[in-house]
Amino acid sequence: MADSPTELRAAFRSGVSGPTSGLAPGYAQANLLVVSTDWAYDVLLFAQRNQAACPVLDVTDPGSPATALAPGADLRTDLPKYRVWRDGDPVGEPTDVTDLWREDLVAFLVGCSFTFDSVLTRAGVPWRYPGRNVAMYVTDRQCRPAGRVHGPLVVSMRPVPEELVDTAVRITTLMPRSHGAPVHIGPAAELGIADLTRPDFGDQAIFEPEDVPVFWACGVTLQAAVMASRPDFAITHAPGHMFITDLREQI
Amino acid sequence: MADSPTELRAAFRSGVSGPTSGLAPGYAQANLLVVSTDWAYDVLLFAQRNQAACPVLDVTDPGSPATALAPGADLRTDLPKYRVWRDGDPVGEPTDVTDLWREDLVAFLVGCSFTFDSVLTRAGVPWRYPGRNVAMYVTDRQCRPAGRVHGPLVVSMRPVPEELVDTAVRITTLMPRSHGAPVHIGPAAELGIADLTRPDFGDQAIFEPEDVPVFWACGVTLQAAVMASRPDFAITHAPGHMFITDLREQI
Repeated sequence: MADSPTELRAAFRSGVSGPTSGLAPGYAQANLLVVSTDWAYDVLLFAQRNQAACPVLDVTDPGSPATALAPGADLRTDLPKYRVWRDGDPVGEPTDVTDLWREDLVAFLVGCSFTFDSVLTRAGVPWRYPGRNVAMYVTDRQCRPAGRVHGPLVVSMRPVPEELVDTAVRITTLMPRSHGAPVHIGPAAELGIADLTRPDFGDQAIFEPEDVPVFWACGVTLQAAVMASRPDFAITHAPGHMFITDLREQI
Repeated sequence: MADSPTELRAAFRSGVSGPTSGLAPGYAQANLLVVSTDWAYDVLLFAQRNQAACPVLDVTDPGSPATALAPGADLRTDLPKYRVWRDGDPVGEPTDVTDLWREDLVAFLVGCSFTFDSVLTRAGVPWRYPGRNVAMYVTDRQCRPAGRVHGPLVVSMRPVPEELVDTAVRITTLMPRSHGAPVHIGPAAELGIADLTRPDFGDQAIFEPEDVPVFWACGVTLQAAVMASRPDFAITHAPGHMFITDLREQI
């Protein structure tokens, strides 16, 4: 598959599907959450109040499937897979949501840690999950609520060799639009995670000797908020199937 | 006057008034904009779309005069001076807005460049306006609009010795919640500013030989948006009379 954002979005539009981890290195990937205008203020404020988990990259105008992050893209077709929600429950995973689109829908695009994976790799931090989805966990930390929107903090976890943890912290601190610095380094129990081998989303991570678990705030926090807050209708990306933007990673 | 945020807010609450430039060094100062819930989404989205000018530090719940930025503070009394707006026109500058407060009002607190002045000073960048208000200008650049909210970018300008411009850029780049890196360095005409000696807000700046004008996005952009967008009712701080938070500057 070609690897420019435009070509990848065109492939997804034509029906190709699959996780986006490792695709289009150097370009920002984004989480998607679509809700009705009735819920938009609460979602935007929730994102503002929980910026580490939900760094907003763009918000569309009501009814518009266009985003400033990728001129020419169509948010109804250009992601590899969506998840549709009714009353907080997932009800389907289509690869196109054109028939579900409405004039009162607003799309939120939120930064994703996939964006910093290629930067970490270039800096010599080994990538422990090529071909797999990153491991994600629901923590026991509650986000600061906003109106009707509330839910727990979700984190992604990467095994990092102990001597490279400083490097990973230093680099990601400079990338606040991709969740910034880790929220926790070390024992998972301190985040209320009982068993690292059983992620709530994504695939189990592979640890090498000397690897330390490093946890970053994760955009799936928004999906957890949908589950907890139960808006009548929502569309998100399917986990790991992100929107690939034209935005150059910034560091 | 004592110089802790708590003591300063108590003084303002008791009726003391005056510009806050240079007060409580090391603590973040904030712009205030209060609108009805009807306007809150458009304002929040405008801030999100114009983050350099409007880095949101906190948004209150409807009707609440309390903010997470300063537990115990009361946003109706704890600023040294307010400006009240009706239909986009300023109609008064009280030092207390308790009698104007309503259950449907939402307060936005937005980062201010006063926060980085003390950091620049410590780094050896001379402060050219002690005892004066910083010079601010309306530019010919339009902000990205959001719903009914639109308006021009407003900038603050500081004269910086040419050999220290790099230092000023390096430091403020690390402080995105206080507007971040300059938006422009050098000739004012490139921002559509006709005459540097006549600021639109604040006081004329004093240039020393070898000083270069350096421009930062400014939170007064929100007041310019009120003027342009004409909500029926709004309250802001009076220019230069900021809310002093308990938030430590972050660099």
